[in-house]
Amino acid sequence: MNCDLLIKNGLLQTPDMGDPGRALPGFVAIRDGLISACGPMAALADGIRPAVTIDAAGGLVLPGLINCHNHAAMTLFRGLADDLPLLTWLHDHIFPAEARFVTPEMVYWCGKLAAAEMILSGTTTVADGYFFEDDCARAFREAGLRAVAAQGVIDFPAPGVPDPADNIRHGARFIDKWRGDDLITPAIFCHSPYTCSAQTITQAKELARQVDCCFFIHLAETEHEVAQSYQRHHLSPVRYLEQLGVLDQGTVLIHCVWLDDDDIGIIKESGAGVVSCSQSNMKLAAGMAPLDKFVENDIPVGLGTDSCASNNKLDMFREMTFAAKLAKVNRLDPTLLPAGKVVKMATTGGAAVLGLADKIGQLTVGRSADIIIVDLLKPHLTPMYETDSLLVYAASGSDVRTSIINGRLVMDNHELLTIDLPEVIGKVNELARRLRSGP
Amino acid sequence: MNCDLLIKNGLLQTPDMGDPGRALPGFVAIRDGLISACGPMAALADGIRPAVTIDAAGGLVLPGLINCHNHAAMTLFRGLADDLPLLTWLHDHIFPAEARFVTPEMVYWCGKLAAAEMILSGTTTVADGYFFEDDCARAFREAGLRAVAAQGVIDFPAPGVPDPADNIRHGARFIDKWRGDDLITPAIFCHSPYTCSAQTITQAKELARQVDCCFFIHLAETEHEVAQSYQRHHLSPVRYLEQLGVLDQGTVLIHCVWLDDDDIGIIKESGAGVVSCSQSNMKLAAGMAPLDKFVENDIPVGLGTDSCASNNKLDMFREMTFAAKLAKVNRLDPTLLPAGKVVKMATTGGAAVLGLADKIGQLTVGRSADIIIVDLLKPHLTPMYETDSLLVYAASGSDVRTSIINGRLVMDNHELLTIDLPEVIGKVNELARRLRSGP
Repeated sequence: MNCDLLIKNGLLQTPDMGDPGRALPGFVAIRDGLISACGPMAALADGIRPAVTIDAAGGLVLPGLINCHNHAAMTLFRGLADDLPLLTWLHDHIFPAEARFVTPEMVYWCGKLAAAEMILSGTTTVADGYFFEDDCARAFREAGLRAVAAQGVIDFPAPGVPDPADNIRHGARFIDKWRGDDLITPAIFCHSPYTCSAQTITQAKELARQVDCCFFIHLAETEHEVAQSYQRHHLSPVRYLEQLGVLDQGTVLIHCVWLDDDDIGIIKESGAGVVSCSQSNMKLAAGMAPLDKFVENDIPVGLGTDSCASNNKLDMFREMTFAAKLAKVNRLDPTLLPAGKVVKMATTGGAAVLGLADKIGQLTVGRSADIIIVDLLKPHLTPMYETDSLLVYAASGSDVRTSIINGRLVMDNHELLTIDLPEVIGKVNELARRLRSGP
Repeated sequence: MNCDLLIKNGLLQTPDMGDPGRALPGFVAIRDGLISACGPMAALADGIRPAVTIDAAGGLVLPGLINCHNHAAMTLFRGLADDLPLLTWLHDHIFPAEARFVTPEMVYWCGKLAAAEMILSGTTTVADGYFFEDDCARAFREAGLRAVAAQGVIDFPAPGVPDPADNIRHGARFIDKWRGDDLITPAIFCHSPYTCSAQTITQAKELARQVDCCFFIHLAETEHEVAQSYQRHHLSPVRYLEQLGVLDQGTVLIHCVWLDDDDIGIIKESGAGVVSCSQSNMKLAAGMAPLDKFVENDIPVGLGTDSCASNNKLDMFREMTFAAKLAKVNRLDPTLLPAGKVVKMATTGGAAVLGLADKIGQLTVGRSADIIIVDLLKPHLTPMYETDSLLVYAASGSDVRTSIINGRLVMDNHELLTIDLPEVIGKVNELARRLRSGP
């Protein structure tokens, strides 16, 4: 048996090993970008002839993490304006910076920087939404990062889309360009019900249905947004989208902080997915999402970091520990969202939300080889009683030493193999200098 | 001018440079364990002759972080039992494990492991409380970690104190042994008002007053504890301690989640310090402490990780980002606890709470040389507009590359210089194997 890459001696848990209840030393063989075999070390065939072998001894071998919400270009705004009232933050800092500094070049280099940060911290797939998304997708592709890349749609003049009347056309062109790519799955991102008209929302969803792609929308992020929705439409944001007929399995609802039980029932019935961004919701003081109820109702849930403007870090390990702890304190119940469920959200849950359940999220034969190795030989990961607890409560992105995406080794021993990091940091620092120096 | 150690070329902010509003390239000279000079690079005297020079170019030079609450021995229980109801966790897992596995040897090796984790992640001072604290203090001392080490006092048979009638005597002996040590400041830790009698609490505080040391006590952690206090004493926990006459500047109240405005006023008047442990409070679903009100009332506040049984990590950078974000979402106000205030809590605030305000917490001439260097050349720390934002929202413990405590280089380029890490990890893994294999 030949293979392109063989990972051996690392601890792993795979459905192909049954359920041993804990991680055991095992191997993963990769061929043509897919997992071609995996199992316990004892089952590793003598005759296997790998082109490249990675010894994962002392490591934990896992499916790569899936970050279901980001705006990578906004990495330029990391730490630009924190601790401010929401509207001051948006109107006095973020919107003006976006109006002046978002260019294809900026989106490309910040996309590269975000890709570097995500790969180094164990993310192998990101769902991203912004303007000039083509340049972001190009950066991700070059970095070897898998992405669901969504062109932004909004009813204001936007970077690259000066006339909002063109917004759906721009989305359609973007999707056309990237369809069939093995790493980049194109999609559409309607900003929100309060920045897009009913017509824009329904047309964007219509486009998504035609080409069978994800339709993302920010929803019910703040209490203010919900009050405004009742004022304008006499409906909650969820019921408003239901009325527009845009809720189905291809729709991904970002945030979902302020929902009532009816809203949750409607989402469940529709098959739509939800993405929760605990850190962003906390930092912007948006609120605490009812993550426990999504789980209880078997709604597909993924986790997202949101952008560097509101987090300010793209580390999915940190997002996991925030999600687990926020859900508990929100209801004063320590049993909610146990570690295993949080790890699922960051892997199989995210894959389901993004319509990639058959492709990524699990170490099993036939899936894409999107794999990370966590280095266990660290004081803060000692002792290890249970892997899910370790991943959610003790590990961080910097513990990831190796990353393989679509069968390609993109990071090994903490070194990026696909990105010229000094060049990228230099370019973004130059953009930041221009931003800081003002008009 | 001679000095033992010179740090140069790193970015730093020090009161000795006035307030330039941002970090500038500077130097810190260290002699006999103290900061002997610091300032901008331009002010570095030509004739300085350092025994050792550290080039901190590309780094941010900071006072080391102060972890105000830990039980280092409990590092053995990291991930042993998560996501459980509080009483099940305590009575079925933690207490039985403590009864069987807490020995001087266990406390020593877990103290070493905790010291390794803390030093690697930028903590230079820890306040610790447990039984066999002498062995923990020994481990910290050997590791070169500064500590306020407190012998535990509780009205049950405890490890090393089989007869609770001896608990104050044990505390007194411990304090006697360590008084005058330049790294270890001994103290006393009364477990709580619900596990210690009024007599134990007042006697322990009496001892602390006699020897002028810190008196720690867990207080108002859960809603249940407050209800119980009203039932037993017809008083809130804070008013109960006030009535016992144990609230003063030397008293440190750990947790303080469930307080009313009267409680906060009493703490303010008394001069007692407060330690907040956001992650532990969230993971155990204890609640959200009114951190914003402590700040508003100028109550001295430090941050603590609590132990690995309830966090499960000893990274003060993670504790800072949790504190900032939890305070905001708690009140739905993003302006609360801005990054600068959180950094103060983890440095000068912690120093004040521990009675070490004149000794540690700031980079200024005459203070102890407890200094860390954060490596800025990382994608997740790019760009940098403002250092406090970077430290609280983007950095993590693994970004700390160098640590100096009491003038001694204890970690450089992420390598521990005072701890044999493989030995320590091996010893703790062996203890964990015994624990897991059961009776």
